[in-house]
Amino acid sequence: MNSTPLLILGSNSPRRKEILKEAGYHFSTMTLDIDENYPDSLPKKSIAQFLSEVKNKAYRQSLVDEVLITADTTVIVNDQSLEKARNSKEAVAMLEKLSDSFHEVVTGYCISNGQKTRSNFVKTTVHFKKLSRREIDHYIEVYQPFDKAGAYGIQEWIGMIGISKIEGSYFNVVGLPIFEISEDLKKFGIDPYRSIKRKKSS
Amino acid sequence: MNSTPLLILGSNSPRRKEILKEAGYHFSTMTLDIDENYPDSLPKKSIAQFLSEVKNKAYRQSLVDEVLITADTTVIVNDQSLEKARNSKEAVAMLEKLSDSFHEVVTGYCISNGQKTRSNFVKTTVHFKKLSRREIDHYIEVYQPFDKAGAYGIQEWIGMIGISKIEGSYFNVVGLPIFEISEDLKKFGIDPYRSIKRKKSS
Repeated sequence: MNSTPLLILGSNSPRRKEILKEAGYHFSTMTLDIDENYPDSLPKKSIAQFLSEVKNKAYRQSLVDEVLITADTTVIVNDQSLEKARNSKEAVAMLEKLSDSFHEVVTGYCISNGQKTRSNFVKTTVHFKKLSRREIDHYIEVYQPFDKAGAYGIQEWIGMIGISKIEGSYFNVVGLPIFEISEDLKKFGIDPYRSIKRKKSS
Repeated sequence: MNSTPLLILGSNSPRRKEILKEAGYHFSTMTLDIDENYPDSLPKKSIAQFLSEVKNKAYRQSLVDEVLITADTTVIVNDQSLEKARNSKEAVAMLEKLSDSFHEVVTGYCISNGQKTRSNFVKTTVHFKKLSRREIDHYIEVYQPFDKAGAYGIQEWIGMIGISKIEGSYFNVVGLPIFEISEDLKKFGIDPYRSIKRKKSS
């Protein structure tokens, strides 16, 4: 009987760690500083998958046969890709672009084990109400969303009072398309059953 | 200057409390045992709003001018309304109905302050993959989902590995349509700004 391969999440995002943990997986995390560059000619919706592959290759160099997951999330509005905001002014400008409109959140992911590699991307459409400047300023001041593409977290205050509906996967917007990843991980010999602990429903 | 009215959540659901808290509101909770009966002739999608009104009237009797929120969640599949499962056998039957199909989660809510009452319902469509019997048994054994309409929680393991997409509000499926409620609470003189504490983004 083969043992379950070791699983590694190549990400320092607390949200990605939380999702993978809640989905029942046991894993370690790795963090590297990687230049997140992509060709200008790349279609906007392909950026996240491209960067997840770049990250996967970089992390792979220090691994043997562990199963590695990397991911990247982009926010696309009016064919423009929003990165992380570097300061409050940029965050205000991003949230004003998202206000009273819809946008796409694309998370690309790449799974490898040294022998084979599988990459994919998942798209969710998110609709924001018209945000007031007071709501935007308040959110940025309290939540400091400078570690998030598009300068917001759907699981935070602004997601609760500002998002009217989504089409697609919620966890994809949080940062990890766990439904698709859990299906793909089976192809790498990993299922989440054995690692779940009995817990009280809440 | 008027003071903000007191807010009461008439529910013992830990999920509803958590959503209202994360959305920035300060509130107390009340719990009553209420017979959740409705007319057989009621359209399935109207049950949740009807029951939220029944609960609101019952709680209202012990209140004066506090703002009261009540809610009820139903799961509707093939024009059948799924209640809470009373045992594992019923939970298995419900999850087998939801498997490989889509269903609607309807949360009705009712807000009152002794002078006026506002009620509404919000609908989200949820798509499940084909769940294996092993996945269903495992989920029921570990999570004991007997306190949830339709016998599942979208925020739990089965929601992560089993739900391919939703259309509508995620928090509505968890149990409280917080976007619509936060808009309506403004009409009762309650906004969430003043009650938010500064917190570190995570």
